[in-house]
Amino acid sequence: METNDMRVTRTELESFCIRLFRHLGLSEEDARITASVLVAADVMGIASHGVGRVWRYVEGLKSGLMLPNASAEVLRDTPSSIVIHAHGGMGAPVSVKAMKAVIGKARTSGSAFACVRDSNHFGIAGYYARLALEEDMIGVAMTNTAALGVPTFGRMATFGTNPLAFAAPADKEHCFVLDMSTTVVPRGKLELYDRMGKELPVGWAVDKTGRSAERARSLFGDMQNQLGGGILPLGGMGTDHGGHKGYGLAVMVDILCAVLCGAPFGTDVYDTPTSHARVSHFFGAIKISGFRDPPEFRRDMDRMLHSLRTSPPAEGEERVYYAGLPECERESESLKLGIPLVKRTYSHLCSIAADCGIQAPKSV
Amino acid sequence: METNDMRVTRTELESFCIRLFRHLGLSEEDARITASVLVAADVMGIASHGVGRVWRYVEGLKSGLMLPNASAEVLRDTPSSIVIHAHGGMGAPVSVKAMKAVIGKARTSGSAFACVRDSNHFGIAGYYARLALEEDMIGVAMTNTAALGVPTFGRMATFGTNPLAFAAPADKEHCFVLDMSTTVVPRGKLELYDRMGKELPVGWAVDKTGRSAERARSLFGDMQNQLGGGILPLGGMGTDHGGHKGYGLAVMVDILCAVLCGAPFGTDVYDTPTSHARVSHFFGAIKISGFRDPPEFRRDMDRMLHSLRTSPPAEGEERVYYAGLPECERESESLKLGIPLVKRTYSHLCSIAADCGIQAPKSV
Repeated sequence: METNDMRVTRTELESFCIRLFRHLGLSEEDARITASVLVAADVMGIASHGVGRVWRYVEGLKSGLMLPNASAEVLRDTPSSIVIHAHGGMGAPVSVKAMKAVIGKARTSGSAFACVRDSNHFGIAGYYARLALEEDMIGVAMTNTAALGVPTFGRMATFGTNPLAFAAPADKEHCFVLDMSTTVVPRGKLELYDRMGKELPVGWAVDKTGRSAERARSLFGDMQNQLGGGILPLGGMGTDHGGHKGYGLAVMVDILCAVLCGAPFGTDVYDTPTSHARVSHFFGAIKISGFRDPPEFRRDMDRMLHSLRTSPPAEGEERVYYAGLPECERESESLKLGIPLVKRTYSHLCSIAADCGIQAPKSV
Repeated sequence: METNDMRVTRTELESFCIRLFRHLGLSEEDARITASVLVAADVMGIASHGVGRVWRYVEGLKSGLMLPNASAEVLRDTPSSIVIHAHGGMGAPVSVKAMKAVIGKARTSGSAFACVRDSNHFGIAGYYARLALEEDMIGVAMTNTAALGVPTFGRMATFGTNPLAFAAPADKEHCFVLDMSTTVVPRGKLELYDRMGKELPVGWAVDKTGRSAERARSLFGDMQNQLGGGILPLGGMGTDHGGHKGYGLAVMVDILCAVLCGAPFGTDVYDTPTSHARVSHFFGAIKISGFRDPPEFRRDMDRMLHSLRTSPPAEGEERVYYAGLPECERESESLKLGIPLVKRTYSHLCSIAADCGIQAPKSV
């Protein structure tokens, strides 16, 4: 945290988001859910998916790209599966609905899965996967995104950053929450290097010829003009470091989110001035008691997670983490001291508030 | 294929393996299944998991590490889940049994999952995931392995290469089969560099201090003596290239295979002169018709897979693949011309045959 950054309480930040989303036409419930998902990212220190992104929602709702009152339509419904057409509505409310549906179904069926098609940005995937934990279930959440990932040996973007989340409960330890894009880095990381004027590390992205991209600026230009180039899958360039594995994982996410329910996939996932983002999501819940008694599972998770986080660090490193641990630690701090916001983000929220004629969030 | 390599028909190679496994005490059915799984790897050109590994089975069965007649015990059984204790039996037969059980359960429940604990090496994970395809299901298979993967920022091996497989059916295109270890490379790749006397690429492994390992030989020594070092997770060293993602995926596989059923996990997965490998597996099947009609799914899979494999290649590359495509192409060739075996592997099979007093496989 830099010295001129601010802190805002969770209640204050959520209230601001609810006022904003109500102003933009969302129902009380949908405004609450969208606020909760966005602020959860800031609470856990995942600023890239938090309120700093709220301008996209403002623009999306104002332009009609995101529809505040779209009614989600159930296309298929069985005791262990559900397919929901979001019709361009907000991503978070329909995603919470879908995740709650699979949890409810898994209670009787043991496991259940949902596809949500033609939705919008849903925030952090881990938010939905975590909803399964207090029900003694394992949770899964994924989404496809606009194509900017390049397949191994290729040079054109054919799939999104396609994140996947997997959450499993523990007892005394913080729960295990893996929430990762399947590309080596997200687009935001390239934008950061562009702003700093730094050359991109080898293995992050390729240019329009398929060779290592050095400058984010020219890469974005070539991608914009459909000339080629894009971000590499997890594992980087070629197969020497397993780039084909990240590529396979990204396609797996696209199959589960989109092909499984007939939604647009690959390069058909994009928004235009007249259409919504057309992204699709996948959710799942697996009941632990189908395999062993949940308290025993949680006890062994504690043993596993404890042994991971107390594993001896490499020379020069402070400690070893496990997925979800840093976020849980930042959450504890945020709830005690307030959520840290960089000054630029805070000023931005204040100017949005002024534009919309609503009250800005007060800092601590 | 080198000029002095041989080819053997699938029938001939399977018959040899069946003779061998029968000789070593397996039932006719278990011998057939184990032979089928091993030879399937060679048929698809995955020599690292094929008959070249059969000496391990010979040694395992002779030493009592693998038990030819262990009876698998069902520990928990619900309409959508099953837990099987393998009691140190052969990996392949109990895994086929578990995968068939989840497919049968998914027919009525929509989706089902299985854990198999205290098993042995099960060959290629993709073999089991593929069994779901002709039933119009998506298939999943995973296994944990002896610990040789080092967590991000760490220096001691705490998890295995923990492969995961995901298979989805297509119509006219070859099916999509992702079958990947969650470490950046398998141990065999390091052994190869050791034999060639080559320095290891940066990002593959770390030494006992947690710094990049240069020599496989000394790394293996340090690991053997529990001093530290090991293979890095997919994404490599640190977090810059997503090493924390591969680490998270490896732990996810360990949770699903082992913690979910109370089996040994992490560094407790190892064999000794008096105990079996204690590895555990996870299998799953999801019925496509719970989401959309399977012919429509297969048609869209064709569209997706076609667009991936016809995506323009990077300069200097011949073509773009998708997961499972190279293996399917090699399968077609193997079935037409015979399975390619390097001469060393063929001679090795002949000497095993002589030792056991059984007939060696005839080459084409």
